[in-house]
Amino acid sequence: MVSVVDCLRTSKELGIVKISTVEMASSPSIIARKTKKEDLADVLAMIQELADFEQMSDGPQLTVEDLVRDGGFHEEQPQKAPVFHSFVLELMEPVNAAEANNEEIRTSSSTSSNLSTRHNKSHLIGYAICFYSYSTWQGKSFFLEDLYVKPAYRKYGYGKLLFRTLVKHARENDCARFDFHVLAWNPAKEFYHAMGAQNLTEAEQWEFFRLTREQMDKLCEN
Amino acid sequence: MVSVVDCLRTSKELGIVKISTVEMASSPSIIARKTKKEDLADVLAMIQELADFEQMSDGPQLTVEDLVRDGGFHEEQPQKAPVFHSFVLELMEPVNAAEANNEEIRTSSSTSSNLSTRHNKSHLIGYAICFYSYSTWQGKSFFLEDLYVKPAYRKYGYGKLLFRTLVKHARENDCARFDFHVLAWNPAKEFYHAMGAQNLTEAEQWEFFRLTREQMDKLCEN
Repeated sequence: MVSVVDCLRTSKELGIVKISTVEMASSPSIIARKTKKEDLADVLAMIQELADFEQMSDGPQLTVEDLVRDGGFHEEQPQKAPVFHSFVLELMEPVNAAEANNEEIRTSSSTSSNLSTRHNKSHLIGYAICFYSYSTWQGKSFFLEDLYVKPAYRKYGYGKLLFRTLVKHARENDCARFDFHVLAWNPAKEFYHAMGAQNLTEAEQWEFFRLTREQMDKLCEN
Repeated sequence: MVSVVDCLRTSKELGIVKISTVEMASSPSIIARKTKKEDLADVLAMIQELADFEQMSDGPQLTVEDLVRDGGFHEEQPQKAPVFHSFVLELMEPVNAAEANNEEIRTSSSTSSNLSTRHNKSHLIGYAICFYSYSTWQGKSFFLEDLYVKPAYRKYGYGKLLFRTLVKHARENDCARFDFHVLAWNPAKEFYHAMGAQNLTEAEQWEFFRLTREQMDKLCEN
């Protein structure tokens, strides 16, 4: 359920600077990092945005609590392996100099740590959710379930930054392949081709099948 | 990488009895069960058979040691979560009475445990390999990577027995969906439709994309 699409807005309109490099943490204004527990409400909202884009009839049914449990964010059960792994794009907009000075005077008793936090406004503009899969030909692999960048922030290389971060994570964890599904009508297909991905439905005629929970129940009860 | 295809051989030709029911362990001659460490060499041989059937240019590259490690069969590391979960179809052919008596006389000093093993010849005629996946709409799910029944044993309901066993495992482990890929030309599509599965490439136009390890390396090195 993957989507990164082109956007017609200009960088001027958005008031943000287009970054020329896509390496993780190479720009002070945008980073791709692992999701934290406190990000999950924003991630859930973006899951809904992606579902709306995909025009699917029935939407997401998960809660933040489900994501906490399944993503291994429960402090009480750190030994339980997470079912999914998640990353976010965080945009940090520096507070302008005058505003920052003003803020510093008012908060002069703060610790330096607090102060540095206050120097940036940050919010999440994208997310990705993956899980480990298995190829009986080559072994442990990585499967990308969702990749999303908010429409206003597309066309600046942020999708590539996030995608590369996932691929790097997969390599560092000895994954032999990196797989995902894309809707045939989704302009994101161009993006994935540019990343080097091959469409195996076109090349090898692999088709994607599913039993819903209802169909699973029916099969087992008969 | 899924395949169960029709076979033209008759049960008479094979000397085995076609079972009418497909419930697990309902027939004394065939069971679907979790894979044991000692099955892995046979499973690897069947992975190669399935690759041959699928006519893919590059074949499986895994060793038994890889399967031991990735399937969580290492006694030394039981805490490490397995990347895949595996099941096999085991056919037990009772030794005929005369043969069994003869055997008992020759091995009268054996323990009863050894004796009962000797009363059945058993071998593996199919396997399945799955992993846990994640749907951002419905949560924890199950993904079927391979399902294989040896050609000589098709058309007896064994594929259905194995498939239902996987679906039951998925339900018991709170999975919301059961997903897999099938090659467009594979007659097994009929089987999966009969199991209640829907072809999402046909219904919703989902296409399957992949980066190989080489493409992953290229993306990260540029």
